[in-house]
Amino acid sequence: MSILAVGSVAFDTIKTPFGEVTDIVGGSLTYFALSASFFTDVNLVAVVGEDFGEEQLKVFRGRRIDLQGVDHAKGKTFRWGGEYSLNLNSRETLFTELNVFEGFQPELPEAYKQADVVFLGNMHPNLQQSVLDQVKSKRVVGMDSMNLWIEITPNELRSVLGRVDIVKIDDSEARDLAGVYNLRKAAASIQGLGPGTLIATRGSHGAMLFTEKGMFSAPAYPLEDEADPTGAGDSFAGGFFGYLAQAPTIDDATMRRAMIYGSVMGSFCVEDFGTHRLERLTMDEINARYHALKEMTDFDDL
Amino acid sequence: MSILAVGSVAFDTIKTPFGEVTDIVGGSLTYFALSASFFTDVNLVAVVGEDFGEEQLKVFRGRRIDLQGVDHAKGKTFRWGGEYSLNLNSRETLFTELNVFEGFQPELPEAYKQADVVFLGNMHPNLQQSVLDQVKSKRVVGMDSMNLWIEITPNELRSVLGRVDIVKIDDSEARDLAGVYNLRKAAASIQGLGPGTLIATRGSHGAMLFTEKGMFSAPAYPLEDEADPTGAGDSFAGGFFGYLAQAPTIDDATMRRAMIYGSVMGSFCVEDFGTHRLERLTMDEINARYHALKEMTDFDDL
Repeated sequence: MSILAVGSVAFDTIKTPFGEVTDIVGGSLTYFALSASFFTDVNLVAVVGEDFGEEQLKVFRGRRIDLQGVDHAKGKTFRWGGEYSLNLNSRETLFTELNVFEGFQPELPEAYKQADVVFLGNMHPNLQQSVLDQVKSKRVVGMDSMNLWIEITPNELRSVLGRVDIVKIDDSEARDLAGVYNLRKAAASIQGLGPGTLIATRGSHGAMLFTEKGMFSAPAYPLEDEADPTGAGDSFAGGFFGYLAQAPTIDDATMRRAMIYGSVMGSFCVEDFGTHRLERLTMDEINARYHALKEMTDFDDL
Repeated sequence: MSILAVGSVAFDTIKTPFGEVTDIVGGSLTYFALSASFFTDVNLVAVVGEDFGEEQLKVFRGRRIDLQGVDHAKGKTFRWGGEYSLNLNSRETLFTELNVFEGFQPELPEAYKQADVVFLGNMHPNLQQSVLDQVKSKRVVGMDSMNLWIEITPNELRSVLGRVDIVKIDDSEARDLAGVYNLRKAAASIQGLGPGTLIATRGSHGAMLFTEKGMFSAPAYPLEDEADPTGAGDSFAGGFFGYLAQAPTIDDATMRRAMIYGSVMGSFCVEDFGTHRLERLTMDEINARYHALKEMTDFDDL
């Protein structure tokens, strides 16, 4: 049971009301991989630059993460900088330097072509297609996207949507993608484009799962101390798809448990800057918070 | 088992992207009472003007609502007008005419002085105090408030908080009241002022319950068709306190069920303008949605 995950590895510079960090290892795939590796083997496909060496790769070492698919290209690694508002609810991108990511052509090592779960991280829909074209067998395909692709490559995005099973985007992106504000209507519209399942994440308000069977609402764990929301949605995705990958069967109950693990991983991510909390996290802590979410939401049926 | 409920009855003029209504019967107490009356007897204490006659009182008739405590004063009834943004997430108050509400001096009929639940609707803290002073026996005291009182009467508000068991306010008000953004810290700070229990409502994101025992997260029911959010928080409160009033014992499980009934009542309220949906609502519909919320949030523990 393994995940093939493709996306961006980057150097992040982050400023929040609680502190700031410069050029730490980030990028959506990094969060996804660290999170998913608690549950399953993760095969990474990414590109980094010459400034990304053993010191940086350490974040992945000693985990269930294979780095064979990481391309070391000439040039500098993707860099992103962002600053959060006082309540962490909005952020401003300070800079985006694509660098080697601009020429990224995902190439799958032979061993990666049989995957249990394929996760297409947020990138140009044509790159997502090219990954799918290389995969020989898989059980589930999940994807992320963002407003940029919804706006500038709507047709390409629709083509990918027709080939995936599960889309994970935030609720405002779901609304933009469907062109309708009501989330249930937006979900139905996106499901109509191909993926039977939509996960709409809502930051500190939790996440909604829409399947052919119905809806599931996963709460967010209310944190007492928040440091940095960067990567929370990617950590959610890692928990969700990581749990799916190791599950013998994927039914409604499996998906619900996966949503809770997603919420757990997203909440831990926010507790410290960058990947720091995920790096020192244990499976016992993960399961304790899973149980806390159960306690926090349980009530008698009629 | 009964609720003594004090607050505002008004004529509301409401504009949303889905339509508009003029001078319909509203006011927070009206929503609260209609909602609570599905669960228990409600004794209303309010003031209306000469323009509020039998035609208007019809909204309360044929329900478990006693109107003995409604004062018919000289002058015009409280009037409020508001307009909602395209996504219903924010609203602008167009006008507020207090009229007879300005001179409101709540006076409790003798029969109202023994109550199971006392609910102090959103009004000047000194009026809330004067109601409590008249009550002879009660099991639980709940209250609502708003930013206006947090800003202009902080000391009076603190005095009331020291005398109540349960505060129901929205999450932004909880943050303002506590002077801290983090909701868990805000809840702890408010609980420290007296009330053991805080309900922080979050609109379409549900509501959080903070008690001495811990936290409970109630989901919002995702509506396919929304018309008008006016009164949703008051309907939540009516469902919550109405359910508590009829419960033989009030323990953690009771409070959780009450939160779900609150969420159910708030969700129905939004489906039509003003009180229209509540007026044609049935207990079967309420219980069906309660069950739907259970279905929507249930997952296996570890």
